Amino acid sequence: MAGNAEGKGILVKADSIAQAFRAEVQTALAGGRRPLTLVGVLGTASAPSAFYAEFTRRQCEEFGIRFELRRVGAALDSEEGRGEGEGAKASAIGEGVEEAIVEANEDEGVDGIMVYYPIFGGQQDHYLQQIVSPQKDVEGLNFKFHYNLYHNIRFIDPSTLAPPPNVVQPKDDVPPAGTVKSILPCTPLAVVKCLESIGVYNKLLTYGDRAYGKTITVINRSEVVGRPLAALLANDGARVFSVDIDSIQEYTKRPSADGAAGEAGAGAAKRQYHPRHTVHACAMSLEECLRISDVVVSAVPSAAYKVRTDALKDGCICVNVAAEKNFEVNIRDKASMYLPAVGKITILMLLRNLIRLSRYNSSS
Amino acid sequence: MAGNAEGKGILVKADSIAQAFRAEVQTALAGGRRPLTLVGVLGTASAPSAFYAEFTRRQCEEFGIRFELRRVGAALDSEEGRGEGEGAKASAIGEGVEEAIVEANEDEGVDGIMVYYPIFGGQQDHYLQQIVSPQKDVEGLNFKFHYNLYHNIRFIDPSTLAPPPNVVQPKDDVPPAGTVKSILPCTPLAVVKCLESIGVYNKLLTYGDRAYGKTITVINRSEVVGRPLAALLANDGARVFSVDIDSIQEYTKRPSADGAAGEAGAGAAKRQYHPRHTVHACAMSLEECLRISDVVVSAVPSAAYKVRTDALKDGCICVNVAAEKNFEVNIRDKASMYLPAVGKITILMLLRNLIRLSRYNSSS
Repeated sequence: MAGNAEGKGILVKADSIAQAFRAEVQTALAGGRRPLTLVGVLGTASAPSAFYAEFTRRQCEEFGIRFELRRVGAALDSEEGRGEGEGAKASAIGEGVEEAIVEANEDEGVDGIMVYYPIFGGQQDHYLQQIVSPQKDVEGLNFKFHYNLYHNIRFIDPSTLAPPPNVVQPKDDVPPAGTVKSILPCTPLAVVKCLESIGVYNKLLTYGDRAYGKTITVINRSEVVGRPLAALLANDGARVFSVDIDSIQEYTKRPSADGAAGEAGAGAAKRQYHPRHTVHACAMSLEECLRISDVVVSAVPSAAYKVRTDALKDGCICVNVAAEKNFEVNIRDKASMYLPAVGKITILMLLRNLIRLSRYNSSS
Repeated sequence: MAGNAEGKGILVKADSIAQAFRAEVQTALAGGRRPLTLVGVLGTASAPSAFYAEFTRRQCEEFGIRFELRRVGAALDSEEGRGEGEGAKASAIGEGVEEAIVEANEDEGVDGIMVYYPIFGGQQDHYLQQIVSPQKDVEGLNFKFHYNLYHNIRFIDPSTLAPPPNVVQPKDDVPPAGTVKSILPCTPLAVVKCLESIGVYNKLLTYGDRAYGKTITVINRSEVVGRPLAALLANDGARVFSVDIDSIQEYTKRPSADGAAGEAGAGAAKRQYHPRHTVHACAMSLEECLRISDVVVSAVPSAAYKVRTDALKDGCICVNVAAEKNFEVNIRDKASMYLPAVGKITILMLLRNLIRLSRYNSSS
């Protein structure tokens, strides 16, 4: 392994190293059961991702592994043979990725799942990485594996990779036998509790649907505040616009207005609403969202950011979650109620979680 | 709840809403066991974080909950009564946070843990959020809880919150009974396999220490490539410089050169090395790191970024992991070996993971 005649270092091509591993993969496959199936999930129109998916397919074919590429969201529009003029609705980046992963997790015919990142980027991609069952996480991106890597723990009990058993969800807030209430993140929960307290939630409506009829704009889509808050409100029945710097999404449990669009499977049209919220790209502007919103929650960590009072619906309710004031000083000229801060409620929710967890741990 | 005489909306202060929840917390506490203990982990010198920690303390005191603030890393330097002139080493942001969380996870006297974010920001903070045991996650940031929230799953079996049992780690690579090899992320693993293949790892050395004696610079500290790669190499015995846009860290299993510094507990000086790598802030420049590095791995996703050939140690080994070329065209004038790409190995590692996981699942 010396340098060549010109005194240059060696150019080591991956192919020469790959040969040993190809042989190892061949041998391991020969000793195993039936053809393995790898599912790829492509949710963007990114050329490098499509290229990598094609590369995955060729590699799988070389070894007799089945490769199924599942295109969702923006990847649908770029699919071959699907022209833009055929009435295909422009789909949003990442739409349907989570559902495709969950489906592949539950499909016993699928041995491994690989997702082509980046999709949303940042923490939302990290969330998606955790959705893939550790039993099918061929990319090794699950937190369990990373924790082991960082802690130099080289072995694992395979039974700890299995997903927890599904809890049947009741229609009210009474935990089924053997279960307890899940824990909710403090800040989004604090906002929900404030909205309950000031009458946005209607207690005459069914549990789990008490924000039905309300249109709510949530400005900020971070994984810590905005996105879980939008989901909580939509899961409680509200129509929610989730606004971020570069996009607006609609979160709702209701079926979409144009009937079956966005629905998978037969019989969906019969359902009054989805068991959980769905997320769709929204073509409305922030101004259009604000004009029809009964409630506006803003959590933008910037002193310069202001929601314009004159864009709000008369009589709406405004909640400021950021440390900075996201509403203008004249906010009460338009808003029927204004909550300038929720920090004191957040800490109480944290203590409530503390008490609950200490009970769960002492009884289990 | 009408507007006031001037026709202005109501200003709703959090205090009025908080009252009901204060009463709820009081009642719940009265029915529970012994005083609860909440541990706060502060790892930065951020003023808002210190303020929020103080706010947490006051709220806990109000309810008779014990609050212990554990200051680590950069928060140590800002601690009251600890002057900068007293020989205190400037500690790095976030240093020791993970260890403090693990300690609190294992401490049966601790009921809840809250960590003051942001620390590193982005995906590394998300990683830290997952370190907190779900049994003590009062902030509700664990993936399990977020998954439930997004999927509108309101109840959970509390036994699924317990951490998996610890696997005793052997000294060789034979899995202890009932365990299998953990899964490693494909790209960092592919780099390690390449380095093994071209002789950077020495097979005559003990398993788990085969990169001992090697100094390696890894440029990029993303949660997908750079940080796990630096950890893998350090856990295999190398001295690793992890270089990011705004900082350089040293990853190593060796005790630090100045004896007990950075060590916790007695007897640590006797150990030849830590069971896993530790991470410390490094005051060296990139040029200083490159000058002593036997191996340089670059994974910067930018065509403009180049490692300067003249800064490298003569005869070093260079590996380009980015899609773009991070090394200059004359790289082989200095490097004894140059690997321009590892993608073909990455996909083989993915297929290797696929085969392993399918075996784990069919045998469990």
